[in-house]
Amino acid sequence: MLLRMSTLLLRTLREEPADAEVPSHRLLLRAGYVRRAAPGGYTWLPLGKLVLDRITTIVREEMVAVGGQEVSFPALLPREPYDVSNRWTEYGDDIFTLKDRRGSDYLLAPTHEEMFTLLVQEMTSSYRDFPLVLFQVQTKYRDEARPRGGLLRGREFLMKDAYSFTLTDEELVSAYESLRAAYQRVFTRLGLQHTIVSAMSGAMGGSASEEFLATAEVGEDTFVGCTACDYAANTEAVTTPAPPATTATAPPLEVHDTPDTPTIASLVELANARALGGRDDWTAADTLKNVVVTVHHPGAGDEVLVIGVPGDREVDLKRLDAALAPATATLFDDFAGRPDLVKGYIGPQGIQARYLADPRVAAGTAWLTGANEPGRHAVNVVAGRDFTPDGTIEAALVLAGDPCPACGSGTLTMRRGIEIGHIFQLGRRYTDAFKVDVLGADGKPVRPTMGSYGIGVSRAVAAIAEQHNDERGLLWPDEVAPADVHIVAAGKDGQVEAALTLAGELAAGGLRVLVDDRPNISAGVKFTDAELIGIARTVVIGRRLGEGYAELRDRRTGDRKDVPVSDIPGVITASLG
Amino acid sequence: MLLRMSTLLLRTLREEPADAEVPSHRLLLRAGYVRRAAPGGYTWLPLGKLVLDRITTIVREEMVAVGGQEVSFPALLPREPYDVSNRWTEYGDDIFTLKDRRGSDYLLAPTHEEMFTLLVQEMTSSYRDFPLVLFQVQTKYRDEARPRGGLLRGREFLMKDAYSFTLTDEELVSAYESLRAAYQRVFTRLGLQHTIVSAMSGAMGGSASEEFLATAEVGEDTFVGCTACDYAANTEAVTTPAPPATTATAPPLEVHDTPDTPTIASLVELANARALGGRDDWTAADTLKNVVVTVHHPGAGDEVLVIGVPGDREVDLKRLDAALAPATATLFDDFAGRPDLVKGYIGPQGIQARYLADPRVAAGTAWLTGANEPGRHAVNVVAGRDFTPDGTIEAALVLAGDPCPACGSGTLTMRRGIEIGHIFQLGRRYTDAFKVDVLGADGKPVRPTMGSYGIGVSRAVAAIAEQHNDERGLLWPDEVAPADVHIVAAGKDGQVEAALTLAGELAAGGLRVLVDDRPNISAGVKFTDAELIGIARTVVIGRRLGEGYAELRDRRTGDRKDVPVSDIPGVITASLG
Repeated sequence: MLLRMSTLLLRTLREEPADAEVPSHRLLLRAGYVRRAAPGGYTWLPLGKLVLDRITTIVREEMVAVGGQEVSFPALLPREPYDVSNRWTEYGDDIFTLKDRRGSDYLLAPTHEEMFTLLVQEMTSSYRDFPLVLFQVQTKYRDEARPRGGLLRGREFLMKDAYSFTLTDEELVSAYESLRAAYQRVFTRLGLQHTIVSAMSGAMGGSASEEFLATAEVGEDTFVGCTACDYAANTEAVTTPAPPATTATAPPLEVHDTPDTPTIASLVELANARALGGRDDWTAADTLKNVVVTVHHPGAGDEVLVIGVPGDREVDLKRLDAALAPATATLFDDFAGRPDLVKGYIGPQGIQARYLADPRVAAGTAWLTGANEPGRHAVNVVAGRDFTPDGTIEAALVLAGDPCPACGSGTLTMRRGIEIGHIFQLGRRYTDAFKVDVLGADGKPVRPTMGSYGIGVSRAVAAIAEQHNDERGLLWPDEVAPADVHIVAAGKDGQVEAALTLAGELAAGGLRVLVDDRPNISAGVKFTDAELIGIARTVVIGRRLGEGYAELRDRRTGDRKDVPVSDIPGVITASLG
Repeated sequence: MLLRMSTLLLRTLREEPADAEVPSHRLLLRAGYVRRAAPGGYTWLPLGKLVLDRITTIVREEMVAVGGQEVSFPALLPREPYDVSNRWTEYGDDIFTLKDRRGSDYLLAPTHEEMFTLLVQEMTSSYRDFPLVLFQVQTKYRDEARPRGGLLRGREFLMKDAYSFTLTDEELVSAYESLRAAYQRVFTRLGLQHTIVSAMSGAMGGSASEEFLATAEVGEDTFVGCTACDYAANTEAVTTPAPPATTATAPPLEVHDTPDTPTIASLVELANARALGGRDDWTAADTLKNVVVTVHHPGAGDEVLVIGVPGDREVDLKRLDAALAPATATLFDDFAGRPDLVKGYIGPQGIQARYLADPRVAAGTAWLTGANEPGRHAVNVVAGRDFTPDGTIEAALVLAGDPCPACGSGTLTMRRGIEIGHIFQLGRRYTDAFKVDVLGADGKPVRPTMGSYGIGVSRAVAAIAEQHNDERGLLWPDEVAPADVHIVAAGKDGQVEAALTLAGELAAGGLRVLVDDRPNISAGVKFTDAELIGIARTVVIGRRLGEGYAELRDRRTGDRKDVPVSDIPGVITASLG
């Protein structure tokens, strides 16, 4: 491959583009890899398309290596299969829907579980047809409320989605482990520093679930690690250790006037000032905050839900949504219509709504909380004595320093990452929905179980750019770089010709070469562009050409050395390993 | 590549599938290349995906070889650019449109002229940036009223679309010739017998236009050739030679009672029986048939139009639509509301609607036609004397035996083909719409002109299947076959192992191998499946394995010969050239 910059569709930008809030987005725009074409939709320019294709190839190779078979479904699909699974309703506004000229309902598929399941139903009949791993690399659509970060969260994006179909739970685990290892190989080849974290499976249904997160400041996903063990989890999946059951007998519940204390801070200040319950060491963690939300059940109406969390924590709406999925929640605001819910003074005792409590609100724990009357709070409100939650819920904000749920001795640290892969043991949700049965080895019908394995291919471009850049520009890992070597003709005339000759020689040897043969462009601009574009090896054909030398620059280390032009092919090839 | 049929997602069908009306569709379904997933939407199964990828690779290689640069646009696009070009309105029901969660209008792009033009506007500024050839291989959408033929006419399909941007008409011609040659190389490599025919550019606008048609009985496009010269044209593009102007003076117009003659046949019979105008040799070609249509102008309402054609011809609605594009026409049916248009007895003399005539209705020609009164016709109705058309139109059906418009001495023959490519000199329709100007060499602004070049990639799969099959199944040309060789383990035990060993050896040597290692499947079924799947070379590991021999079968010639197993790699490699 030989790309000449004199004819390449490329326009690098010196200025920071407006509306690009994350480094990868800014750099991919500035270096001419992508352009915005629509809200959440991007055009791949020639250099970007090369990187995208490299990543796709790596993903495909590793999927085939573990027995994956590639198929390709339409993106535009009729409604019916998504009604069977109830996802047409569950997704709601999050998917693009449309009608064809006959008025039939269609959607732009956000994922294809239904289609994979139907295909397997049509194409298999016996246990001999299993296990199966099917995948596709396909354009996906989601009507994101807030597209952000360029390729990080778009409305049209490229995904590799895969599903395993096995007959037993043991085979599912085996397929899962095989795909998990393939994913590790993929992300290693992509040069992505990543952490595998426990995750929730979200609206997909299913059980065991792990995310591959590329570590990045700009990541949307907050995940935790442990100071003492190898526990790592998406915050949605963090479980809160319940305190041991208390046997101490708390004094009876007392109600106090606490005027003008609608917030936890004002309540704690007043409680200490008045030594409520005989204490003046109240902290926010001793109070029980009760947050009212409206839960939206897809296709089944709304419900008022009250969530109790220790007063030193907020409710984390992402954790809450994950806990409620496929339902979603928004903050309740119709207090006028519910006089029993006294805003700022709600307590769980005698509450007339479903009440779910944080695991820390264990049986026997005593709390300072609302008395369900304006301007009044209660102390010694004991879980299991004065109120009994309808269940527990993981919805409280996870904080650095929280105890590790895995080892119990370490504490949690917080990091941010970009979700680049998600694998989980989906189970039989879809084979149940479509009643997929095949003949078992014992002659009886058996229902296959599924694993689900996704990689954000276009998002990976952004994740790599996010991890591999410096103040001068991008710096691609070799396996995904748009070229192996970037040759710069620093001067004119003979230097351009020599650069093109060398480029032709390298390309003939199988290398992918980008050569800057632009006329009327200064050497300084060419160097700046080369650093922005971010290919690891630059060969400068410059002032020592007459002596038969070119300069080899290493974009990573900054090293420069003069090398005989005739040695360049060997040196470059050797450096590629 | 090594594909084992024991694990491959494949189920061949013995029975003809219902609803598959053309051979390619039937065979691609039966041999397990595709499955229907939606109206006009197909799922690529593993074997089909391999063929599709082979074709894509060939197209890409030939595009890059002529300097094409690959980009990729979103398929889901906002309405605005398509309003600028007026195509949002022109396409009407033919495209899929939708609204996002904010109520903004989007479309699933049928083609991307607007986006290519906007990209060039953003990425170029000077004559130095030209010429440019940009292409993409992308999923396209059209809300076809009548999807048919499986992959031949779908609603979601894979296209390679390319545009050249040049500054002068000469450079456009040069780019056009270069792409035309590239297309010839593509279709030759794909093994497609094809004819390049003159065509109309349709709703795209533009001038010079040629289609690449793969010869096939089931093709939707009728095209003509000449018995004497190399003229070839889509019927829409055929021009009708006008007869020389007549100087003979026809007698005056006479009106006759012609009761119960609403059809041409009944009129001719009566005219001869009564010797109207003193003749009894009337034929349908002497009559002038006047067909009323409603023309739908996109965004600008409807118009009644009358079309005059010799009575021995029908109006061809495809030719009519091509002549009226971007407007479309349907047969007029509101005669009750237009008493001036007397159904069955319409004549062009004094007509109160726009009237366009076939070129054969030349000045001085005399006709037997309606008298605009029920049950009456007129003879000696002379064009230019008794009526003057508002213009000519090419809407009459083209018939075998018509004179060739190119050489004048030959006559036309009719064939059918599948449109696999379309190239045309688009001109400045889109650069005008978006006001694209760049700095010219003389310091003045210059507006680029465009060429448009499309290949139906998924349709090519069907076209190849249509041309390459026999009664036993498909028979792929080597360059697009899903594998280079198909190894059949005819028996059990040692034969399966030997087949897998050979397959591994061939795959290690770079060949793409499909091996039928299915247990519990008879040799006969395996042979039948191999012929259905259609890979040119089959190696049978069978009864002579003990002597060290395998049988090599040539799917094309039917030749079979025994070859030492150790010679197979060399023989296969040599046969691939």
